[in-house]
Amino acid sequence: MKTAAVLTIGSEIVEGIILNTNAQYICQRLAENGYRVNRVVSVDDEEDSIKGEVQRLLASCDVLVLCGGLGPTEDDKTREAVAKALSRRLILDESIREKIHERVSRYYNNLPRNLDKQAFVIENAQIVPNPVGTAPGQLIDFEGKKIVLLPGPPQEMRPMLDSVLEKLKTEQDFKTIKMLFFAVPESVLDQFMTDTSVKGCVKIATQASFSEGVWVRLTAPLDCFAEAENLAQRLVEKFQRNFVGYGDTSVERALFEELEKRNLTFSVAESCTGGLVSAKIVSVSGASRVFVGGVVAYDNSVKMRILNVREETLKRFGAVSEQCVVEMAHGIKELTRSDLAVSVSGIAGPTGGTQEKPVGTAYFCVTDGKRDSVEKIFYPQERNIFRSRIATHALYLLLIRLRGMI
Amino acid sequence: MKTAAVLTIGSEIVEGIILNTNAQYICQRLAENGYRVNRVVSVDDEEDSIKGEVQRLLASCDVLVLCGGLGPTEDDKTREAVAKALSRRLILDESIREKIHERVSRYYNNLPRNLDKQAFVIENAQIVPNPVGTAPGQLIDFEGKKIVLLPGPPQEMRPMLDSVLEKLKTEQDFKTIKMLFFAVPESVLDQFMTDTSVKGCVKIATQASFSEGVWVRLTAPLDCFAEAENLAQRLVEKFQRNFVGYGDTSVERALFEELEKRNLTFSVAESCTGGLVSAKIVSVSGASRVFVGGVVAYDNSVKMRILNVREETLKRFGAVSEQCVVEMAHGIKELTRSDLAVSVSGIAGPTGGTQEKPVGTAYFCVTDGKRDSVEKIFYPQERNIFRSRIATHALYLLLIRLRGMI
Repeated sequence: MKTAAVLTIGSEIVEGIILNTNAQYICQRLAENGYRVNRVVSVDDEEDSIKGEVQRLLASCDVLVLCGGLGPTEDDKTREAVAKALSRRLILDESIREKIHERVSRYYNNLPRNLDKQAFVIENAQIVPNPVGTAPGQLIDFEGKKIVLLPGPPQEMRPMLDSVLEKLKTEQDFKTIKMLFFAVPESVLDQFMTDTSVKGCVKIATQASFSEGVWVRLTAPLDCFAEAENLAQRLVEKFQRNFVGYGDTSVERALFEELEKRNLTFSVAESCTGGLVSAKIVSVSGASRVFVGGVVAYDNSVKMRILNVREETLKRFGAVSEQCVVEMAHGIKELTRSDLAVSVSGIAGPTGGTQEKPVGTAYFCVTDGKRDSVEKIFYPQERNIFRSRIATHALYLLLIRLRGMI
Repeated sequence: MKTAAVLTIGSEIVEGIILNTNAQYICQRLAENGYRVNRVVSVDDEEDSIKGEVQRLLASCDVLVLCGGLGPTEDDKTREAVAKALSRRLILDESIREKIHERVSRYYNNLPRNLDKQAFVIENAQIVPNPVGTAPGQLIDFEGKKIVLLPGPPQEMRPMLDSVLEKLKTEQDFKTIKMLFFAVPESVLDQFMTDTSVKGCVKIATQASFSEGVWVRLTAPLDCFAEAENLAQRLVEKFQRNFVGYGDTSVERALFEELEKRNLTFSVAESCTGGLVSAKIVSVSGASRVFVGGVVAYDNSVKMRILNVREETLKRFGAVSEQCVVEMAHGIKELTRSDLAVSVSGIAGPTGGTQEKPVGTAYFCVTDGKRDSVEKIFYPQERNIFRSRIATHALYLLLIRLRGMI
């Protein structure tokens, strides 16, 4: 197995000002491509620190990925440090220089001189185009090893890393199946995979996110990839109701696709989630084709006044009840004239819970006006973790209703 | 300035399965306590890797903080690796052993034998009590340097790190002022601070988040702390309109406090933000005291049907216009009978822009029913970055309106 190391550069990392999400992303993608990552190092913007780490890390890995320090300012020293570490020259690339000037001059009239810094390339490096920003990446062959230079902004770095990994693929190739599940504990998926006899060549990784669900990644070399596909198939069969989709999906994206396929619209009535259910579906580009709008009925007066929830219902059963979510769903459906509606009401805490309905209780209703699917869940977590989770749960219920599972 | 290094241990980090939030927390706390962190390294659970990194990092720092690998299982090798790196013995501490057994036997009857592993202490180490879990931490003096061993679970590690930093405090103590600004570029704040003559003993750090604003941290030793306070004062005076607050605040929290102080409520009418404006204020615990509810008027039919926006307005000026946001704000205020209302409508993209109103354009209105404050901004960014930013901007406008600045 080839080994890799990651070096992220920037004082904002070692000072703890930002969370190093780039390091995680790079490690994940390297692992998915069959590399064993043996070191992840972060240093500040000192040229000597970067140079020293490059030399040290190169001694014990096949691929070294650097991220950060490719910008135009004084602080950005990655290019210079790597050139020194490898004893290679830095050369001004005129075509890059032109591209940068062309791009920046769309926004600014007075081009700052330090922009040119980004057009310097290490001798014999291949350019990795930056689809979003100005700083190009670089891919360097050095004594049988590969060194990759990527900029720090995640939206620039990510597609660039993917294009580099595509280039580095060897004959002994690895492939990964990525799957998303929702409303099933990570441990249950894990136990099922452990109990299913599967060859050791398939590497299993799971990762749980309270708001997204549980990610499963099955990685295998090509000659045993059928084994991974077989396990994936078994997972889908066993956890049919929980399976959201393959690849880079999400509950909201899967829902968007199911609705668009059927040419259906929906609306949302929500209380404690306070807009998150709507916000999640609107995060999908093109959402206007399936989502018409929603009401955040936070105060009971709003539930009555806008959604026509009856005062009697609130008095007798409370705002967090089956009766209330049914009326909320019907109320928003009639108001917006959507094909479907989903509603949610819960107790986010920290206060407001009772013995009968403790903090963490939530009710949902999905309706097409004729049939109501109601569900109650109990998810006692911190206020905003709870809110984000049950917002996704509301969309999940609409998703599995469309799939004919509830 | 004393230097520090951080070593986090665990294959789940280098495989990219988890995000290394521990590293950020430790770096932040070290920086706040006046240390300059020069290296952050992550390795997997190999004893040799840990041992090698400990020896290397110790050569260039005063304090080395290790995190992870103190559990009871085979994988947990930090204690052994550090003992070997320092050529010290591991000694079974009977009192720790008893405490662990006592704690675990509350939950399990059959105590696993590997528990004893956690009771081994490096020769001459001080014990750092674990208030939450079983693995104690260790604080070691070694050739004038300090080595700190902490367990990986954040809820255990955090209070233990704090107690260690308390112990390590020297006479030369540091304090930090943390401030949040909004709707002003990081570079402008930075330039002002550079131009303001301030003694070198004040360390300035800024950090920009598109959704939160710009954080400024001023750190200084106690004997020059007045200088930091003076700079903070000057920042507040110069950027009065942009200053959100001191400490761990946010636009939504500052708004919540201003509204609660005045005993006022508000409501939200939003379009492209799709619920995010409401969701942000609801993230503040106690939001029900100031927020009554909102409408996500994503489709124009909803703007007309629920918010009473006139068809004429939409036809003549479009949904992204001053006229539309004014009608939206009045519509939601009347519907919910709140004291104040805020509305926002914008073009999130990637499609839907025109020459006159390109993607990234947003209009806002804040009203009390009598006076309307309208603002237009242009923030051409990726769809969801734009949405999150302008959601905060809507709340920011209400905040500065309450403060009498618009």
